Amino acid sequence: MKVDGRHTRTIWLESDGVTVGTIDQRLLPHRYVTVRLETLADAAEAIRSMLVRGAPLIGATAAYGVCLALREDASDAGLEAACETLAKTRPTAINLRWALGEMLAAVRNLPREARLAAAYARANAIADEDVAINQAIGRHGLALIEEIARRKGGGRVEILTHCNAGWLATVDVGTATAPIYTAHDKGLDLHVFVDETRPRNQGASLTAWELTHHGVPCTLVADNAGGHLMQHGQVDLVIVGTDRVTAQGDVCNKIGTYLKALAAHDNGVPFYVALPSPTIDFAVSDGVREIPIEERGEEEVTLMAGKTADGRFETVRIAPDGVRASNYGFDVTPARLVTGLITERGVIAPTRAALAAAFPERSGGA
Amino acid sequence: MKVDGRHTRTIWLESDGVTVGTIDQRLLPHRYVTVRLETLADAAEAIRSMLVRGAPLIGATAAYGVCLALREDASDAGLEAACETLAKTRPTAINLRWALGEMLAAVRNLPREARLAAAYARANAIADEDVAINQAIGRHGLALIEEIARRKGGGRVEILTHCNAGWLATVDVGTATAPIYTAHDKGLDLHVFVDETRPRNQGASLTAWELTHHGVPCTLVADNAGGHLMQHGQVDLVIVGTDRVTAQGDVCNKIGTYLKALAAHDNGVPFYVALPSPTIDFAVSDGVREIPIEERGEEEVTLMAGKTADGRFETVRIAPDGVRASNYGFDVTPARLVTGLITERGVIAPTRAALAAAFPERSGGA
Repeated sequence: MKVDGRHTRTIWLESDGVTVGTIDQRLLPHRYVTVRLETLADAAEAIRSMLVRGAPLIGATAAYGVCLALREDASDAGLEAACETLAKTRPTAINLRWALGEMLAAVRNLPREARLAAAYARANAIADEDVAINQAIGRHGLALIEEIARRKGGGRVEILTHCNAGWLATVDVGTATAPIYTAHDKGLDLHVFVDETRPRNQGASLTAWELTHHGVPCTLVADNAGGHLMQHGQVDLVIVGTDRVTAQGDVCNKIGTYLKALAAHDNGVPFYVALPSPTIDFAVSDGVREIPIEERGEEEVTLMAGKTADGRFETVRIAPDGVRASNYGFDVTPARLVTGLITERGVIAPTRAALAAAFPERSGGA
Repeated sequence: MKVDGRHTRTIWLESDGVTVGTIDQRLLPHRYVTVRLETLADAAEAIRSMLVRGAPLIGATAAYGVCLALREDASDAGLEAACETLAKTRPTAINLRWALGEMLAAVRNLPREARLAAAYARANAIADEDVAINQAIGRHGLALIEEIARRKGGGRVEILTHCNAGWLATVDVGTATAPIYTAHDKGLDLHVFVDETRPRNQGASLTAWELTHHGVPCTLVADNAGGHLMQHGQVDLVIVGTDRVTAQGDVCNKIGTYLKALAAHDNGVPFYVALPSPTIDFAVSDGVREIPIEERGEEEVTLMAGKTADGRFETVRIAPDGVRASNYGFDVTPARLVTGLITERGVIAPTRAALAAAFPERSGGA
């Protein structure tokens, strides 16, 4: 994706070949600031404090975090301690644990002196693989958008998305945004309605920011607006990302996704979920019953940060003093409301059989 | 309803017997400030600027606005000009036009010198009638809540509401809140999930404020949360207000209401709409097709006002510079998703036949 006209990834090796550059996403959309991670502690804190966020970017950051740890201590104990520290930073992130497993597999059977180079090689590969996966998601999603454009006789394709499953959540391209960037770069006429995504406003502060930077026409809307837009034929398809897809195709994603899926279903609007296959958790079936939903601090609901007219950063309280809030981070959209899962292996029906057939090596025939 | 322990209405005649007191709702929840309306212009500006809001309170304010106008000019031309000025302040408010019709009917056939007293008498009656209607809504809604409490074996009844169809939107008691206050005052154990209601945050700034002042346990949630709460059995019923109900029972209400109705339907949660009968518009049938939806300024989406930690009022921009937003104020919930309409004449099925039977004098047998 382009930032200020220059192609940029969200995480990269600095010119010293060892330290890691990334973007402080907490300052977006008001300031674009890059930071350098030099130690395991830097990487862990970047994940924990949500300086980086998004499942694939968290995975890549954790992978580089293992590299930074091995620079200080390449022993078995050091490797294990690093993985333990990183695994604890965001307990529900499945990509994080996947990336740590990959790093362990790549280095633990090597002699100590060979570990650092092997770790960087695997971390770089994890980053490159994420980009390749997202490019494949983009190609498969492009076909869906082209089909809609054809049916509309070449008119503008209207897409709605929720939260940020974008460039900023991945190493490059994004997942839910991959079909959008791919279609836009191919010259298709499209426009995106971006859900604000309360309470953390990732739609407003991240998705609207990155789409605008890349030149994709978009309009920010309150999370409440999507149903009305779909009732009035203003949305041709919904594409969202996901934090976890179950073996039967249930989709865990940012709180509010389920409401948009209901509205899409009620209005005959296709509802697609874009995901890299490590996001599929074949150990879980019934998402609503089995996936524990993270409860976050109430201040995300009661307070709001932004920029004043004269450019200062302020946090304001929007709730009355003394009022309590609850803050569930995710919800689960049952598979019956999902039109298809856009993966790097193609668009897959959200059923146990279709997922097992597409990923036989992971579903284990169970 | 009680404010600081004292029973208070949202609009009242001041002790001079002519000027009108009300609350500047724009300053809530951070400051409780009352203001005095002395002229037609004051009343019109109060409605236009949303110093007062909520269909019934707008109606009462318009009625008193006619009184204030007649103090200056009780001629036919003065009366007509006043009604025209007031009708233009909020073009989609059906209660506003109803109240103006009532005022015209009460005074236009009287000699000029008798008009002022008749106007105040009718405006006072409109305010008192609103209270009586809401108390009746409260009694009918109470029965629904008691039934749920019985079924739960005396456990806490969990209610979700959207926007503010509360005390602050009416002269007293509220519409969606009428069953809640009535049940709470009767000693029933209940708790309310209050939707924040972006983009204007009426749930956070008004509903959470008034419930808390009256002592009703409540929790503020992001608009995105309701689906998850209902999936997990945390909501026993939904009660919302409405700006307009059509002859076939479609419900126009604050944007996002439709999404909650979909979630309620998907999870078998009863979805009730509380309304004073003047809100029913027998001239409209298909709400989705026929009701024009007001589009408001994009700054309601991109900016957010609140109170800083040190007590200053600030407005912050939460969207990236240059990003556009769209802002539909309302949506329409089709009658098929509505369990019942709680009116002053009882709980009515959202069907043409049931509405016509309950209000034969207004439906005109059409």
